[in-house]
Amino acid sequence: MTQEHLVLFTPSGKRGHFETGTPILTAARQLGVDLDSVCGGRGICSKCQITPGYGEFSKHGVTVAPGALSGWNSVEQRYKDKRGLIDGRRLGCQATVQGDIVIDVPPESQVHKQVVRKRAEVLNITLNPSTRLYYVEVEEPDMHNPSGDLERLVHALETQWQLKNLQADFNILPQMQQILRKDNWTVTCAVHHADNGIDPQIVHLWPGLYEGTIYGIAVDLGSTTIAAHLCDLRTGDVVASSGQMNPQIRFGEDLMSRVSYAMMNPGGDKEMTRAVRDGMDALFTQISAEAEIDKTLIMDAVFVCNPVMHHLFLGIDPFELGQAPFALATSNALRLFAHQLDINIHPSARVYILPCIAGHVGADAAAVALSEAPDKSDDLVLVVDVGTNAEILLGNKEKVLACSSPTGPAFEGAQITSGQRAAPGAIEKVEIDPLTKEPKFRVIGCELWSDENGFWDAVKDSGITGICGSGIIEAIAEMRMAGLLDPSGLIGSAEQTGTERCVLDGRTNSYVMYDGSATGGPKITVTNPDIRAIQMAKAALYSGARLLMDKFGVDKVDRVVLAGAFGAHISPKHAMVLGMIPDVPFERVTSAGNAAGSGARIALIDTSQRNAIEQTVRKIEKIETAIEPKFQEHFVNASAIPNSSDSFSLLKATVPLPDVNFNTGGGGTGRRRRR
Amino acid sequence: MTQEHLVLFTPSGKRGHFETGTPILTAARQLGVDLDSVCGGRGICSKCQITPGYGEFSKHGVTVAPGALSGWNSVEQRYKDKRGLIDGRRLGCQATVQGDIVIDVPPESQVHKQVVRKRAEVLNITLNPSTRLYYVEVEEPDMHNPSGDLERLVHALETQWQLKNLQADFNILPQMQQILRKDNWTVTCAVHHADNGIDPQIVHLWPGLYEGTIYGIAVDLGSTTIAAHLCDLRTGDVVASSGQMNPQIRFGEDLMSRVSYAMMNPGGDKEMTRAVRDGMDALFTQISAEAEIDKTLIMDAVFVCNPVMHHLFLGIDPFELGQAPFALATSNALRLFAHQLDINIHPSARVYILPCIAGHVGADAAAVALSEAPDKSDDLVLVVDVGTNAEILLGNKEKVLACSSPTGPAFEGAQITSGQRAAPGAIEKVEIDPLTKEPKFRVIGCELWSDENGFWDAVKDSGITGICGSGIIEAIAEMRMAGLLDPSGLIGSAEQTGTERCVLDGRTNSYVMYDGSATGGPKITVTNPDIRAIQMAKAALYSGARLLMDKFGVDKVDRVVLAGAFGAHISPKHAMVLGMIPDVPFERVTSAGNAAGSGARIALIDTSQRNAIEQTVRKIEKIETAIEPKFQEHFVNASAIPNSSDSFSLLKATVPLPDVNFNTGGGGTGRRRRR
Repeated sequence: MTQEHLVLFTPSGKRGHFETGTPILTAARQLGVDLDSVCGGRGICSKCQITPGYGEFSKHGVTVAPGALSGWNSVEQRYKDKRGLIDGRRLGCQATVQGDIVIDVPPESQVHKQVVRKRAEVLNITLNPSTRLYYVEVEEPDMHNPSGDLERLVHALETQWQLKNLQADFNILPQMQQILRKDNWTVTCAVHHADNGIDPQIVHLWPGLYEGTIYGIAVDLGSTTIAAHLCDLRTGDVVASSGQMNPQIRFGEDLMSRVSYAMMNPGGDKEMTRAVRDGMDALFTQISAEAEIDKTLIMDAVFVCNPVMHHLFLGIDPFELGQAPFALATSNALRLFAHQLDINIHPSARVYILPCIAGHVGADAAAVALSEAPDKSDDLVLVVDVGTNAEILLGNKEKVLACSSPTGPAFEGAQITSGQRAAPGAIEKVEIDPLTKEPKFRVIGCELWSDENGFWDAVKDSGITGICGSGIIEAIAEMRMAGLLDPSGLIGSAEQTGTERCVLDGRTNSYVMYDGSATGGPKITVTNPDIRAIQMAKAALYSGARLLMDKFGVDKVDRVVLAGAFGAHISPKHAMVLGMIPDVPFERVTSAGNAAGSGARIALIDTSQRNAIEQTVRKIEKIETAIEPKFQEHFVNASAIPNSSDSFSLLKATVPLPDVNFNTGGGGTGRRRRR
Repeated sequence: MTQEHLVLFTPSGKRGHFETGTPILTAARQLGVDLDSVCGGRGICSKCQITPGYGEFSKHGVTVAPGALSGWNSVEQRYKDKRGLIDGRRLGCQATVQGDIVIDVPPESQVHKQVVRKRAEVLNITLNPSTRLYYVEVEEPDMHNPSGDLERLVHALETQWQLKNLQADFNILPQMQQILRKDNWTVTCAVHHADNGIDPQIVHLWPGLYEGTIYGIAVDLGSTTIAAHLCDLRTGDVVASSGQMNPQIRFGEDLMSRVSYAMMNPGGDKEMTRAVRDGMDALFTQISAEAEIDKTLIMDAVFVCNPVMHHLFLGIDPFELGQAPFALATSNALRLFAHQLDINIHPSARVYILPCIAGHVGADAAAVALSEAPDKSDDLVLVVDVGTNAEILLGNKEKVLACSSPTGPAFEGAQITSGQRAAPGAIEKVEIDPLTKEPKFRVIGCELWSDENGFWDAVKDSGITGICGSGIIEAIAEMRMAGLLDPSGLIGSAEQTGTERCVLDGRTNSYVMYDGSATGGPKITVTNPDIRAIQMAKAALYSGARLLMDKFGVDKVDRVVLAGAFGAHISPKHAMVLGMIPDVPFERVTSAGNAAGSGARIALIDTSQRNAIEQTVRKIEKIETAIEPKFQEHFVNASAIPNSSDSFSLLKATVPLPDVNFNTGGGGTGRRRRR
């Protein structure tokens, strides 16, 4: 009788009894242990590395027998010589059971390992990609029993990898016969596993064992910028991140001007579709070049975007989104082929677009919901994704509400006199001394404040070129705290404020933050129109949040998450001084970075999250700000910059705001706050 | 309590009890009676016409109550005024049950009616197309409960037509919103129902009730010709048939020369793919123009072809088919989109390609198997599809064997001195007087024989231009019967035969069938090389059939079916004189016309036949002629033209063959038959 031995796998804790000589990979498969393998146990892919865990064995009350694994063999030695293997590691397909043993599966050998990214935002994602690699040995053709090469390839995948109901993508057919014959009827297949019940499809073939990887791309398609993360689908790692301006900008900076463009210009929607698709394709070319990979290795793509970008990207005229009842063409998630969107990556590459929540709350908001999971939060969380359009989610485990608010492009530095995109040379942090009214600032690309030693040397190369979105927020909040600004948003004159930095600029005053004109540089000022633009933007944001709070039946929230590229750089203190967000303790305001992009990455790397977010989105309660009278009311109330009599009690305790009023009744433009 | 009445439907015999006021359409649906409707019971499509069957009622033992249906109503009157309605007919959606009644559903109101074609071959097919029309009323968008237009459209189809798991083709999205709004949220949808478990897909939308139809196309892609039938998918009728030469002809007349072209010329396979796809697209344009329909109304296409054409059409290099083991890239049926083959019909049109049987036995043979159903035959049937390549099936209910045989293009009139395609002016029937050795003939386009009054007038326009495949068969058989030809295939001299029509032509003799040179016309002769080409072709055909008979373990068959455009015109007597087919009584040789094309039509009109033929093909036993020593042996034995000592006893009884031998030992080329 053959002897059986106990094999215990960590970290899963799965255990079973196996006969002497059973390969560890076989034992792992039979127990459903998460142990990777591309070559199917042929000792050539090295994905099934394991560590015999002698030391920890007694913990489980099992006696350790020395030699519980078979000896180091020539296959392992050859692999180690050729490619290296960490000491103590074994190949799970070579090492066989010889006695009771504990086997540790290191994270990189787990198929469904947790992925923690280094670059881009750190996320904890289970690796469960749509497209995976399988190595097989295919039977040769037999004239006496004729069957197609494809049918024998499918048979090999079915018997060697237990894949069921496999289909083949049409694109593999032209080269298949040559590839099968190139390395003696061994081949590595990329198989796409759909998340919606469609049969798995063979989408690519390499002769022999393919030792490279395949990629996916997660894209946040914003009105102003397109940001993409290129991910290794075998490891989940982000290998490159890149962004560029949305080429549609030339048709209008905000969404409604693009909708108008489509309405006013026959074929305008098609022009914009062309522009964004071309831009997308160019971005993919660029990111592939940065990562030094072949673009056709990108086999999956996830897109998130607001409804107008969604429609324009899909080739749908956004006309209906420009007027009540703001009917989306389709709100459900979309599963397409990349070529249907004119994206030239792998010819069989798939595209997943997250569902839209409502006519004004898009797939980007769904991605934020996926990333920030308000529906799984115990406390009441307000998630604000600040962009040209702000998406706002409010909720907890009980329910989640969503709306969007048209903030316009001011927060992204557009329509601001000295405004610019967040790039080296842009002022991003500002402090103004309440006594001297003198500013100090930091610019992107330099860790020093402008009053620190070495600052001017450090910024010599980039120069000081303008002020970005977070910089203008801080500047205005600091101006308000320094008494340079009254609650209505008017900048005081030099006489009123006691600083020569306040200068007459047309019929109102401006504040000169930096004057580089002596050395040929720019003069960076904050003007009253800038303040008005920011006031409108922040009022829109605040009103949306208040409206959701009304609908939820609360007048405060437990915490606030600021999402969006801009949200990542905003200072909670300044946002609250400005009245952008409802007041909560500072430490309860966190930044989620590009949460929409993170949501896209989650849907890319872990396809089980696609159905999950589709379910979640169905349950989210949609609030249409455009038809809510309360929204208008909140908006009017929110356009001022809070003064000391406001309800921002928490804020007031830490930041006393000066009670000033610069409205002279003449050139003033600030709207007085209604009480 | 509401009263219930018995409603009995004919011809189905289905019956049930229904409350007073139940519409007949509703009753039919609940009982699963096959009653058509596009508008879903709104009285606008008139597809649900029925006839109340008072007269026959007593047959079923039920008392007839007068007024068993509700009275003629204004909807019916309006329809009758506008479009006409046969007297006695009612609309099933308007007429309601008022008492016990028999309802007759006329054939044109049955969805799954049997289709009998008038043009093309007559077939009995159940109407069960992939793509069908549905009229729905869609809910308008609601800001307070936002959902996409598409989601509401899908909901309407689900609730109004009980369709499940509907998906939308990406192509409908760009125009969908406009179409939905054009006729007050009513729309007709074309829905594609896959035959392989894929969810049904909405593929087209028309505003309001679309009163037109949609089309499918069945194509027999031969080496020499492409033949297409355009079918109405709502009725199953063939509305146009068209054909053209396969543009690949310029790369070689037979399949192996095209395979060689691909081998010798880098990129040659791509050139040929381009040629056949362009030709296909041109043919579709032509047939649409003939039928005066919009090409984009063609929503489904079925293709049958031999393996080499199959691969070239799909863009696969046929290299492997040119050498043992003749491995097909794929043998299974293919379900594709038309655009993947560069065919510009409806952008979401589907393509179905029947399975291949083996490396040399293609989807055309599978289509013949579908059309002629040897697997359902009680007696042993030999089905021969004669073309540039002959596909041969032999079988009965017990088992079916298949092989192919390279007959070459001689049967299609190619490589024949005076040969031409079957077209007006071509000699298609020949008789030679055994005494005078004088020929008479008929040409395509004229019903008269050449010795009948008025013949020369009748052919004045077309002229006499050459001899087609069936003509050369008859000519050679008649020459043999008239003693102009010996069993080895040599034509006798004028002296040997006693006719001046036999003339020296190089080192052998030719027979002058018609000499128009005096009037500037051609001289039509049958030469010894012609006879050799036909001998090779018929030997290949006969040897394939014999090989299958050997494998089946029989030395005779019960009946023979001649398929193929050529098979339709061939005379059984002449085929048997020539030794093309094994001998059976003349009356047991039938012509199936273009059986491959008919199989394609069946798969187009009744999609349930697709899975059925795939199952059948899996069970067919494939015989590869190239590796069967017996095939060579049969081939050598079969190249002669049978003489009186042959085993063709049935034939001999009716057609005594002269025992002549013209081999003078010098210029002869005929191979002597081995005994």
